[in-house]
This record gives sequence, C-alpha cells and structure tokens, in this order.
Amino acid sequence: MIKVGVVGYGVIGQRLADGVILQEDMELVGVAGNSKPTLAIRALKEKGMPYNLYMASFENKELFDELDIPLSGTLEDLVQKCDVILDATRAGVGAKNKELYKKYNKKAIFQGGEKNEVADVFFHGYANYDKGVGKDFLKLTSCNTTGLIRTVDCLDKAFGVEKIAITIIRRVADPGDYHRGLTNALKVDPAPSHQAVDLMTIMPHVQATGILVHTPVTHGHIITVVASLKEDINKEQLLEVFKAHPRIRVVKIADGFQGNAALFRYARDLGNPRGDMYETAVFDETIVKSGTDIMFAINIPQEAVVIPESIDAIRAALKMQVDGNEAVSLTNKYLGMGKWM
Amino acid sequence: MIKVGVVGYGVIGQRLADGVILQEDMELVGVAGNSKPTLAIRALKEKGMPYNLYMASFENKELFDELDIPLSGTLEDLVQKCDVILDATRAGVGAKNKELYKKYNKKAIFQGGEKNEVADVFFHGYANYDKGVGKDFLKLTSCNTTGLIRTVDCLDKAFGVEKIAITIIRRVADPGDYHRGLTNALKVDPAPSHQAVDLMTIMPHVQATGILVHTPVTHGHIITVVASLKEDINKEQLLEVFKAHPRIRVVKIADGFQGNAALFRYARDLGNPRGDMYETAVFDETIVKSGTDIMFAINIPQEAVVIPESIDAIRAALKMQVDGNEAVSLTNKYLGMGKWM
Amino acid sequence: MIKVGVVGYGVIGQRLADGVILQEDMELVGVAGNSKPTLAIRALKEKGMPYNLYMASFENKELFDELDIPLSGTLEDLVQKCDVILDATRAGVGAKNKELYKKYNKKAIFQGGEKNEVADVFFHGYANYDKGVGKDFLKLTSCNTTGLIRTVDCLDKAFGVEKIAITIIRRVADPGDYHRGLTNALKVDPAPSHQAVDLMTIMPHVQATGILVHTPVTHGHIITVVASLKEDINKEQLLEVFKAHPRIRVVKIADGFQGNAALFRYARDLGNPRGDMYETAVFDETIVKSGTDIMFAINIPQEAVVIPESIDAIRAALKMQVDGNEAVSLTNKYLGMGKWM
Amino acid sequence: MIKVGVVGYGVIGQRLADGVILQEDMELVGVAGNSKPTLAIRALKEKGMPYNLYMASFENKELFDELDIPLSGTLEDLVQKCDVILDATRAGVGAKNKELYKKYNKKAIFQGGEKNEVADVFFHGYANYDKGVGKDFLKLTSCNTTGLIRTVDCLDKAFGVEKIAITIIRRVADPGDYHRGLTNALKVDPAPSHQAVDLMTIMPHVQATGILVHTPVTHGHIITVVASLKEDINKEQLLEVFKAHPRIRVVKIADGFQGNAALFRYARDLGNPRGDMYETAVFDETIVKSGTDIMFAINIPQEAVVIPESIDAIRAALKMQVDGNEAVSLTNKYLGMGKWM
Repeated sequence: MIKVGVVGYGVIGQRLADGVILQEDMELVGVAGNSKPTLAIRALKEKGMPYNLYMASFENKELFDELDIPLSGTLEDLVQKCDVILDATRAGVGAKNKELYKKYNKKAIFQGGEKNEVADVFFHGYANYDKGVGKDFLKLTSCNTTGLIRTVDCLDKAFGVEKIAITIIRRVADPGDYHRGLTNALKVDPAPSHQAVDLMTIMPHVQATGILVHTPVTHGHIITVVASLKEDINKEQLLEVFKAHPRIRVVKIADGFQGNAALFRYARDLGNPRGDMYETAVFDETIVKSGTDIMFAINIPQEAVVIPESIDAIRAALKMQVDGNEAVSLTNKYLGMGKWM
Repeated sequence: MIKVGVVGYGVIGQRLADGVILQEDMELVGVAGNSKPTLAIRALKEKGMPYNLYMASFENKELFDELDIPLSGTLEDLVQKCDVILDATRAGVGAKNKELYKKYNKKAIFQGGEKNEVADVFFHGYANYDKGVGKDFLKLTSCNTTGLIRTVDCLDKAFGVEKIAITIIRRVADPGDYHRGLTNALKVDPAPSHQAVDLMTIMPHVQATGILVHTPVTHGHIITVVASLKEDINKEQLLEVFKAHPRIRVVKIADGFQGNAALFRYARDLGNPRGDMYETAVFDETIVKSGTDIMFAINIPQEAVVIPESIDAIRAALKMQVDGNEAVSLTNKYLGMGKWM
Repeated sequence: MIKVGVVGYGVIGQRLADGVILQEDMELVGVAGNSKPTLAIRALKEKGMPYNLYMASFENKELFDELDIPLSGTLEDLVQKCDVILDATRAGVGAKNKELYKKYNKKAIFQGGEKNEVADVFFHGYANYDKGVGKDFLKLTSCNTTGLIRTVDCLDKAFGVEKIAITIIRRVADPGDYHRGLTNALKVDPAPSHQAVDLMTIMPHVQATGILVHTPVTHGHIITVVASLKEDINKEQLLEVFKAHPRIRVVKIADGFQGNAALFRYARDLGNPRGDMYETAVFDETIVKSGTDIMFAINIPQEAVVIPESIDAIRAALKMQVDGNEAVSLTNKYLGMGKWM
Repeated sequence: MIKVGVVGYGVIGQRLADGVILQEDMELVGVAGNSKPTLAIRALKEKGMPYNLYMASFENKELFDELDIPLSGTLEDLVQKCDVILDATRAGVGAKNKELYKKYNKKAIFQGGEKNEVADVFFHGYANYDKGVGKDFLKLTSCNTTGLIRTVDCLDKAFGVEKIAITIIRRVADPGDYHRGLTNALKVDPAPSHQAVDLMTIMPHVQATGILVHTPVTHGHIITVVASLKEDINKEQLLEVFKAHPRIRVVKIADGFQGNAALFRYARDLGNPRGDMYETAVFDETIVKSGTDIMFAINIPQEAVVIPESIDAIRAALKMQVDGNEAVSLTNKYLGMGKWM
C-alpha cells in the first residue's frame, strides 16, 4: 500500500483525498490544511473525521481545540509518514513546500497553478505517462488543459493531430467562491491562452493556439476545438474514438445535456461525492466539419477533472505501474470511471 | 412499514425519494416519472436502479427500452401498491392525479406549487402537525414558507409573535435549470408576497406581509425578517431558541458562511446526497434589534428544505404518530438532522 | 428627402429611428408600435414626442389618451406616407405586415429575425450592396452575422477568405429584458450555428461553420474567428485592414477594453444616444496565427450593430446610390462613424 | 458664476462634471484624473474635449502626448482656479487631497467613500441643508443612503418617522467593472448596515437598522423599507408625498418597471447622458401595510443618484442659497428633474 498525503485542503485537495481513498492500492495517511478551521475542515469534522488532519502550522491550534477538531500533527509530521505527496496548495506555496519534501526525500505531485520549474516533468496520464515514470517531482496541467488533452491525445493516437485552435469559454469561479467573481461581463484574455501553450509542452508535435474568454458562471468550462488532423475523418469516426475513452463522456443536447449546468446537475443526481464529475464531456450535436478540419465542443468540470490524472501521477512517480495503459486502467477502475459505457 | 410512492421525479421528487429511503419505518415502493427519460431518470439508471421506476404513461416506452431502463408499471400500478403518495409533479398535475388517488382510496401529500383547494389542510410539521393528523390530502407550503415558518414558529412558541415583515431575496432558478432564468436584473413582485400570506394560513394569529425580489442566482433564497414579538428579547435569547432547533442551523459569516453559495458548498463538502441541505440557516451576525422588534436573515436551500416536513406529513396523514414532537423527532433522526448540535 | 417609417418600436426599432433622424437625406415620418404604451413609448412621451407615433391597432387607444400620448394614426396611415419601411417587429409579424406594404406598393427592409422567404435578398451593406439595389424587400442578417461579416468581408476583399470556423459566445438577453434569461449556466446549441450558415448566403464563396454558446450576460456577443485566407498574412496586415474600416474599431485589452462590458461603458461615456455603439470591435491582443490560419476575437454590440447596414439597405432599395462605396460612406458620415480614425 | 473643479474622473466624477455643466450659475473649470489615460479620458478625447483635463501628476505625460490628449495643468493648477472642488477620488485619496484644498483655502465636497472625519458635516440636500451652509468641507452620503434618505426625509416631514428597518439588495458592481464582481452568489454582510447607521447621522431622531445582501447584478440597488411612522397612514397618503417629490419617481410594475434593469433601460431610452437616472424610484405595487407600519421597495441608480445632492452641497458650502428649498429647486431645474410630474 502506497502511503499518500494530501497537502492543501481546498477545492482540489478535498477531491484528491476523495480519489485516493478509492484506490485499493493506496492509503490516505492524512490531509494538511494551512492553519485555519476553514469550511472544508468544519465539514470534515461534522462528517466525523473520516481521515486525519494535519496543519502547516499550529499557530491557531486553540481555534481547533475550541471546535474539538483533533489535529494529528504538523505538515512536517505528515510528510515523514508518506511515500508521496499530492500538493494542492495555492500557487507559490508548493514551491516552498518542495524544500520539505526534498528534506525527507519524498516524491510530490504539484497542481497546475504552480510554476513549471517546480517539477521535473509536466505530466498527463494519457498523453505522456512514460515521461513521469520514476520522477521525483511531477506537475499536472490545469483543469482546462487536462480535460482538453484527453480529447486531443486520443484523436492524435487514432488519426494524428497537426494543429488545434481552441476557444475557452471559462467559468470564472467555483460554486461558493466569494473571493473572486465577474458580474454581467465577458472578459477577454490576451492570446494565445496558456492552455494552448501548455498543451504543446505535453504534446510538442501539435501546433496549438487559442483565445480564452471568462464568463460569469461556476459550473464548468466549455472549450470549442478546431482540429486539423492528418486524416480527413467524419463525425462518426470522431465519436467512435471518444466513446471508447473512459474519461470522455459523449452527451447529447437533445437528451437534456444543454451545457455545463446540466452536467453539474447530472453529477449531483448520480450521487457522486460532492456532486462531482471526473469526465470531460463532448456535446454530440456540436461536432461539425470545417473543410477537412473537424470542430467540436467539450465541457470541463473544473473542480474534479484533474483528480484521475493526479492519481495516475502517483502511479508513475512511484513506478507502481511502468506501463501507462495499465496505470490509467487501474485509476479508472477504482474511481468507477466508464461505468456508463 | 408504511409503503410510500413518489410521483413526479424532478428536483423535489428525487429528494423526496432520498428522504423516504432513510426512514426506517417507511418503504419506498417506487417513483413515477411522466413519460420521458429525463436526465434524472438517466442518472437513476446509471446508478443501477436503486429503486423501481413507474411511468405516468407508457407512450414513450420504446425510448426506455432503447436505454435498457426497466419500467415497473404505470402510475396507476404504483398508486395501488402504496399507502400514501408524495406528489411532486408540476403545478396543476397533482390536482389531476388526485382523482386517481381517490379512486384507490389512497392518501396523498402535495407540494407547495399546487393550489390550496387540492388539500384538506395546508401543513407544516412543526407549526400545525395536529391539523394534519388523519387527513387524506395534505399540502406542504413552498420552500420559502416552509423554511421561514421553522424560525417564526419556534419564536412564537418561545416568545409569542405578533407580526412579521419579510423581504425575500429569491434565487430565480435551480442549478441546471435551462427553462427559466434572469440575467443581470433584480425583479420585483407585487406585494404582499404569497409566502407571507401562506404563513398566515398556517399561523393565523400572526400578521405577516412582505416583498419578494428575484435575483439571478441558483443556490438558496435569503429572507430578512423583521419580527414584532410579545416580549422584548435580545440576540442571545433568539440564538438560544434557534440553536435548540434541529432544523435550524446557526452559522457565522466570520466562519466563512458568507451567503447562500457558501452553504451550498458546505453541504457538498459534507458529502450529503446531491450536495443537499435540509436546514434553514440563520446568519448570526445579521441579528439586530429594531427598537423592540428583532431582525435577522435566513437562508433557504430551496431544493431540499421541504423534504423533512413532507416526511412529517406522511406521519400525520397515516397517524404513524399522533404527537407532533414525536413525529418530527423521528423524521429528524432518520434524516440525520441536528448531528452538529 | 426619402420618407422613412419605422415599424416596431422595441430595442431595434428605437435605434433605427435614432439612425434615420441623423441621415440628412432621409426624413423620419414616424414610428409604429403594436398597441400598448410600452416603456419605450412612455420614454418617447417623456422626451416630448420628438417624432410621431402610430399604432398597429387602436384597440387600446384609451390607454394612450390617459397618458396624454398623441397618436398620429394607424400603421396603415404610416405606410401610405412613406417611401420605405424599416420593419423591426418581432419574428413573424413582418411577414404579415408585408401584405400591407405590398398593398401600397412600398418597399421594406426586414430584420434578421424574419424568415428568409420574406425578402427578395439577404443583404449586407458592405458585402453585397449590389444585390439589394432596386429590390422591393430586403432582409438584414442578425446582429452577430452583420458584425461578423464586416470583418470577414474586408479580409476577403484584401486577401481572399476560403473558410472560417467561429465560436459565438452569445449574450443571452439585452439590458432590461425580463422575458428571457439564463442564470449561472452556459448553454450549447447544436452546430452549425445559423450565423455561419447565413454568412454563406451573403458570401457564398466562403465555407463557414461554427458553434454557439449562450452566456448569462447582456452587453455584447463575442465571436472568435479562425480564418483560412488565400494568403498567409501576419497580424500587422490584418490590423491594417481592420483599422481602415469605419465600422470596425480596433481596441486594446491593455487600454482597458477588457471585454463586452468595457465597450458598453465606453459607448455610454462617449455620450452616444442610449449609450449605443455601432461598431464591431476587434481585440488587438487576441490576434494570433494558427499555422497559416489567423485567429481573432470580435465584439458585437447587439442592440445597435445592425443600424448602419439597415440604413444602407434603404439606400440600395431606393437606388439613392447605386454604388455601394458611396452609399456606406454617406451612412457612416451621417452616423458619425469612424470619427476616432 | 461659481467656478467648480471635479477631482477624480471615474464613474462618479464624470457624472458630477455632466451635472455641473447643466447648472447655469456654475462653471466647470475642468476635471482632474489621476495619471493614466483611462477609458473615461479616452472617451473625453473622442468627444472632442468638451472640457479641460488636469492631472494629479504628470508622470505619464508622454502617454497623453501619444494619444494627442491635451492636459491643461496639474491638480494643483486646477484647485487654484476653482471656488470649490467636487472630490470623487477613490476612498482615502480625498483625505490627502484635502491638504491641497486647505493650502489654497478652497472648499470641497467629498463623496460617501471617504471617512466622516474628512468633513465638517455629513450632508444631504433635502434632509439637512442648513447644516452645510457656509461649511468648508462637506461629505455626501453613499448612493444607497442618499437615495434612501430622500424617501425617509419626505415621510418624516409629512408624518414623522420613528424608526426604519431596511433590507438592501445591493448591486455588486457597476456596468463595465472588471475589478470586482460576484458570481452566482448572494453575500450577506454583518448587520447593521452602514447605510442605516449613516442615515442616523443625518436624521438623528430616527432609529434605523438594516441588513445588506450583495447580489450579482449591475443596474441599481433595491431597498425594502419597513417604516414606523408617528401616524398610521395608508398607501394613498404615502404615494401623495412621494409623487410630489422631484427626486422620487413612482413607477408601476404593471407598466413594465419590473426592477432595476427596467429602470436602467428606461433611462437609456429617455436619452439621458450616459443612460443615467438621478431619481430614486418607488415601486407602487410593493407598498403594503404591516400593522401600523408601512413597507415599500425603492430603486437606487447607483451611478448617478448622488449627483443632485452633490450639486446642492456646492450651493450650501458657498452660500449660493441659504434656504434649502430654494437651493434644491434650482439644482432640480437645471438637472431637468421632475419633468414627468
């Protein structure tokens, strides 16, 4: 059993813990918060502390005592007990934590917000598993890039992808965020979007560019992709490839999947923990040809989409599996992905 | 074991089924949809059909066959197998269904959208349980009124309430609704709001009025209440009463409960089914005196707030308990309410 | 002086009237509402009736009398006094009104909401002015298509356009709309979007497709365009063409033009009537190359963007100018377009 | 002619300049920006510089030169040329600027964002004009408080007000704001709201409290007021008083004034500069009795509502009129208020 610690207990950290617990070949040693009894930690307490809580610092320990929330130790304690750390702290903190991980000779997986320099490799479970095998420090791509690469990588393996031009219609905040927001405005970012640039780091043979527009919604990014493939494929060929992918869910607008909010509702109705969805969705009726290019729209459930690839990264870093296919299959199996297929 | 059927499988119907399953003295016979494989039904199928599905009509049976979704019979079949029906169909349909319930001599509980005439009594588990005991047709109050009455009723029992003036800051759609919405606008309704009027039906000794303003959000109504009590109480007295109520959750803005979206996130993080919350929340820091009146703000999680009172209604209609306190305590126990207390 | 009537006095109709008044070679005979004293008509009254008001029917005349709003006659009266009608009624009404226009042998210009069959030609002032010359019934493209064609047409004239793939990030309602809306959701439409299809009607030599996503905002559509040109041009060449176009405004994100809401604010601050903007904006920093293709994002101020091309259509239909360049120059001059150049 | 300078050229500053220009007994010497060519300044340039522009500092003068925007001097130059300054800089800057105003012995009017200490008196044109007469430094109340006081003050003068309990449904950003926002969330503030507290500073004989809830919209705050008067008045008496007030506009939901966005649209359709509205609106159909109390909802157009009272403040500070009624009548006349009456 590989011993895993989750550092950072926000939107992503909570879900990483949810995902690790489901892996039968991994053990969640605990999670580390920064120093305050956040809503996430209060919820953990109200649920009866299903796993152990550590703290980056004990400076506010009396706040936890008041609430009768048991602390199992410091971040440094947690690190020593683990084989690998999933670091989901906010941007910049991971780079500092890395010193601690190195001190105890532990491997770590960072999230997309950290700078690339923090890691030995920029990692995606499907697109470059080999690159991560045995590495000490891996960095995931951001939620948009992770979900996007799933589709581009499987098209690439099937038909060869030459270039893509993407439009990211970005949700601007997560449900419950009060520290950021946008009201009745679309906000345009300078191009190319970092997601296109990041994709090229993982898939250097693909030419990618794109424009990102922020929108005042919370339930999932939508990306349109114009892809130039090496073959002139039709919609059915595209669907065949997407439908065979356990991390891609092909949905129909006509069935009620009208957009990001419908997918959010569906995941809640599935009874998924926190109402989360791990899959990238492809909207069937958006697939159209543009000359020999093909165009389609996908949905990225930003809160949970990176969990599977983060689990894959543990498998790669610790050489739990050296073969990528074997690794992602195990991750998928334990996360219950592809059940609908 | 009381046999319960849920008719209407939308936002409320799904949650009624969730709630009935948790009652150890009730059995969920099944749920009835109208005639199409909605997203809710597709999710039921993907979850492995944890309970039986009936259909108002079989006109689209081939659509269900295609999706390999088993149907256990018609609405009429379901009604015959049940002791009581929770009718959560859309406004107007319940009145029609009532004929069927009468035909088979079954009791039924209607939701707030139906006209008052459909029922023998307008019901609230805490405020008028006695009125519902043994009745054939009960009607719940709407989500806002149900959650509001919890607070007004417990103030009334403790101190006596003379009048209230409320401002309802209404969420305009549920997460995932595409058939209604409001964009960058506040919409004012003619006063008095029906919620104030409805409250007086349940609590005729209280004088109530109010103004309702629709807002473009999805995660919970917020109501401010200006209450004139028979006693001149202070904030601590108010809090004491609210904190003792298993269906009221007192929260602090300072702890991170900044509004409806924070409560929605918290419920998801609790791991509640569908990320739901049953409790009315009171924001501690909003409690202020206005002369001898007292003012405060509450949060109404519109998707699930009526579930406990709907379960109470079954208990009353079927005389499972003739004592209201006993009844609501059982409902609360099985729903896991008040665990945080 | 050409005598113009505006039929339909909603968002578009009001602005058509504003635009006609500015044309020194046109006279606004009056505007026709349907039958009720809408907010637009109440505003006209409060401004002191700067132009005459007609009514489709007099069935509610007493409502106007009560408000002391003078009516100059019926729709039929208005039609007889005009040389040409700008019909901005809601979809479907224009087709009925056409019988009246034919009865009195009057030309008419319909808006994009009407079916194509209503008109002899689908018209755009820059892209196919010739096709409209002397025709009796012209139909404008919708706001998105009109603004988009400006950019595609000028690229086509300069470099030749082979195909485009667009992503329309659509504002879902106008400021002040209460009859439609979307709340915290992105809504995806089946592809190809009608805008791409419509563009091909006007520019049949261009291959166009696209995906449309509705967003809960009110201040302008944003479209990303991936264009395949006959030449491999760079950003500077693109900018040169756009900057020379009086109906295209090149703006920089760095200057504060961060999106549709910034442009809306800017138009208000310019003191434009109703805070309107006629120009399609291009966001400078979004222009990127995708291989030999070029990609960029534009903003479409949906309330007013079609006004210039609607005025052009009058010029074409009545042969006021047979040369398109001459016609659009006059429209631009009278509307004050290109002043910033 | 009183010489007025406007310091700070944002949302409020621009509108103060608009308002001063309309006063026939005042002259706008110029406006002062901080140091960058903002969108507001670019719009001023595009309009042809209808008034002179000064700069707090010349550190970025080359940016203005590039854009060919003429600068008439520094803030210090402007101050020397004026009799009075309207300071609409962001919170905290006004307190610094005050040193400059004192250096040149100039009077100044600050906006609601400044701390109370900056001024000799907290001012409202209708409620306490006398207090401002001849004072050197006056501070306006915030937009919500200013608009609210109009209604409470006129009720007070007619019937006597004992206490009010308000619920402020606050728009969270102005149209075009990208630096702040809220997405799909209602945010509750600790009570009492500062608006209630501030009102008591101006009207110390009234007891006021309230709760403020932020909503993700941009077009106007809505406030519900529960007022305890010295007389038990009915709706008609209330309406009579409100309808006689040139800064209060009574509107009907039934006529189409469904909320803040409808009022915003109406102001645009009136052709008001920037689509602004100066009046507080009262929604007729929201007026209800709560026992002997009376309840109603009002709309506050946050961008422009403080302009009239700011102009009043000039009149008071400079003793242009010693009688408040005379002063506000002049302001109203020049601003064109009450035309609809």
